[in-house]
Amino acid sequence: MILRDGWGTIQVVIEDETELESLLAAGCGPETVIALEGLVVSAPQAPGGIEVHQPHLEIITPVAEALPLVINKREIKASLSTLLDHAVVGNRHPARRAIFRLANGMMAGFRATLATRGFTEIQTPKIVASATESGANVFQLNYFGRAAFLAQSPQFYKQVMVGVFERVFEVGPVFRAEPHDTTRHTNEYVSLDVEFGFIENHFTVMALLRDVMAGIFTTLQEHCAADLELLQAHLPTVPTRIPHIHFGDAQELIFHRYGADVRGEPDLSPQDERWLGQWAKEEFDSDFLFVIGYPMRKRPFYTHPDPERPEFSNSFDLLFRGIELVTGGQRLHRYEDYLAALAAAQLPTEPFQTYLEAFRYGMPPHGGFAIGLERLLMQLLEVPNLRLTTLFPRDLTRLTP
Amino acid sequence: MILRDGWGTIQVVIEDETELESLLAAGCGPETVIALEGLVVSAPQAPGGIEVHQPHLEIITPVAEALPLVINKREIKASLSTLLDHAVVGNRHPARRAIFRLANGMMAGFRATLATRGFTEIQTPKIVASATESGANVFQLNYFGRAAFLAQSPQFYKQVMVGVFERVFEVGPVFRAEPHDTTRHTNEYVSLDVEFGFIENHFTVMALLRDVMAGIFTTLQEHCAADLELLQAHLPTVPTRIPHIHFGDAQELIFHRYGADVRGEPDLSPQDERWLGQWAKEEFDSDFLFVIGYPMRKRPFYTHPDPERPEFSNSFDLLFRGIELVTGGQRLHRYEDYLAALAAAQLPTEPFQTYLEAFRYGMPPHGGFAIGLERLLMQLLEVPNLRLTTLFPRDLTRLTP
Repeated sequence: MILRDGWGTIQVVIEDETELESLLAAGCGPETVIALEGLVVSAPQAPGGIEVHQPHLEIITPVAEALPLVINKREIKASLSTLLDHAVVGNRHPARRAIFRLANGMMAGFRATLATRGFTEIQTPKIVASATESGANVFQLNYFGRAAFLAQSPQFYKQVMVGVFERVFEVGPVFRAEPHDTTRHTNEYVSLDVEFGFIENHFTVMALLRDVMAGIFTTLQEHCAADLELLQAHLPTVPTRIPHIHFGDAQELIFHRYGADVRGEPDLSPQDERWLGQWAKEEFDSDFLFVIGYPMRKRPFYTHPDPERPEFSNSFDLLFRGIELVTGGQRLHRYEDYLAALAAAQLPTEPFQTYLEAFRYGMPPHGGFAIGLERLLMQLLEVPNLRLTTLFPRDLTRLTP
Repeated sequence: MILRDGWGTIQVVIEDETELESLLAAGCGPETVIALEGLVVSAPQAPGGIEVHQPHLEIITPVAEALPLVINKREIKASLSTLLDHAVVGNRHPARRAIFRLANGMMAGFRATLATRGFTEIQTPKIVASATESGANVFQLNYFGRAAFLAQSPQFYKQVMVGVFERVFEVGPVFRAEPHDTTRHTNEYVSLDVEFGFIENHFTVMALLRDVMAGIFTTLQEHCAADLELLQAHLPTVPTRIPHIHFGDAQELIFHRYGADVRGEPDLSPQDERWLGQWAKEEFDSDFLFVIGYPMRKRPFYTHPDPERPEFSNSFDLLFRGIELVTGGQRLHRYEDYLAALAAAQLPTEPFQTYLEAFRYGMPPHGGFAIGLERLLMQLLEVPNLRLTTLFPRDLTRLTP
């Protein structure tokens, strides 16, 4: 018999037939909850090297019914939809649990790296008055008869908080009402957000992000070795300096190396990102690549332009194994620049009044980034669908469990 | 001149008049962002014991305008509404920052205490399909054309996750659409949630809660001494065993000791709680008191009844200085008991299908509790309004900043 508790599993050898008979007589199948006393013995052939002999069992909660999916085999054979429909039970599988312990390891590494650099954690509101942050779709709710929205990111609040704590981060849910039905989007996810002041430009932000990524993987290595092994995950090496390429140069490189003329396109396609990832691996032996200098017209209004070439921005994406993982950059910090940027974007100032107040009363040059926790897990574990790295995912059609 | 960075303040002595003149000429008032180099000298009379001499200043972001509230005095003199309206600037005040660093200390103490006991942190969805958890008012939102709701607590998910990790906790936002306008409610707050399996009854939960409260205050003492001093906060002693009184006995005690006949009332009023807090202080010299055994009819359907007196529940409230701070208890764990409880409450089973699935496939006896972070801060700091312990509070009328 395999016994599972909240942390692992252990083999129990039942030699006394009456024990087995009493279990069967009570109609006890998989997931029956029991108390067990027995003799722990060394058993080199058993998983974990030990097993329990001479067990005395007490049934706490019998389970007679067949489970909706099999969770006591090495792998879960269920289809994605069965697994998601029955996540309440499916998440009990050791391989599922390992994924979410890795998520915790990532958050721990994120927090620890930032703590050593003087960052303060913040909790900002998820119900917000304005829907106009970056043009993304937002969920609308009824707030005592008024329209309100779910925060699509803590962007405005984390910037404002740079005026308070100078270096801040947040770990919290964000909500995107994008009607995607892809393998790499869900509508609610955990965002690891960072923002800090007194930077020189986006390169200061990229240097911090490099250290945060390294800190995350070091923490996984030190604290989650068993989970990584169970999931056969290979941790990447984060280069001391992650290579970077300018947006325009990236398009030139794609044209000359891969033959696709994407020059002049306002953004990179997933295929472009895969090519760039391949190039970074071949050229620098790096799983990571920064693409910098995205055109201003594709970035939100608070993005800081490149002072030398103002049609390009002091922003970046971090590609991990050829897929965009993190977006970040330098933000505007002068009040007048915000007024000009809003006017240029033909946005009214009124919905941004309290945001603008921070800049009106003094803000340092600052920037930051946001890591999607489930996206990072997905790409690290090379699972085919983001929903598999979410305990209870929310998508276009799924609101339960 | 007082210079503030993200962590503290320091006195800067400007002796060179040209420096001052250049500041004034540039129209620089409070909150001007500067870079400063100078000589740090010992100055026993200065706050912090040091000050900066011979400063060389560089103006980064000048601020000429008068601030909407004064934040460079020891105390903020603004009214509550001015402070909340201008929280973007007001939160820069050292005393405001100290409050939120204490919030972080509380979360750190919470996490650390639970980590030593094998608890796993979880992140559960905030958008949920069903509005029927405990009859409280919930916010409704438009989820791709369907009605969905904001989670009023992670109650169902944390219970379900006991089947996965056995001992779990969550730190996250919860949303209450209660149209209160009181000094101790807001509509979005941070909940510190715990749930764990293989308990004997609610006393197992109360013992853990005692240790969590002690862990929180120990962490504050060890890591937040300067903030506690700044705010003149007095940490309570958590007794090794927090005294407890049964709901019925509490009503008898109030009658005999304070002359108010509240016997037979289904719940305790705020005045009742104050009397009980006073009694606990006088009788046991304790700032804390458990009230146990609340009537079943006032508790949600998943509450476990007292096996000996099934009209009372295996639940508790923790009073801190005479105000309810934490609610918790033992939950039902048998599938049949849930079906019976839903039927008795005249609730349909359909909206609870995935919740019920956890119990159908085996759950141990379990229980837990939830601490409102801002409420704990409010009562510890003895501030008159919960909004003061929230960075950007949300209430009946307030959606900004």
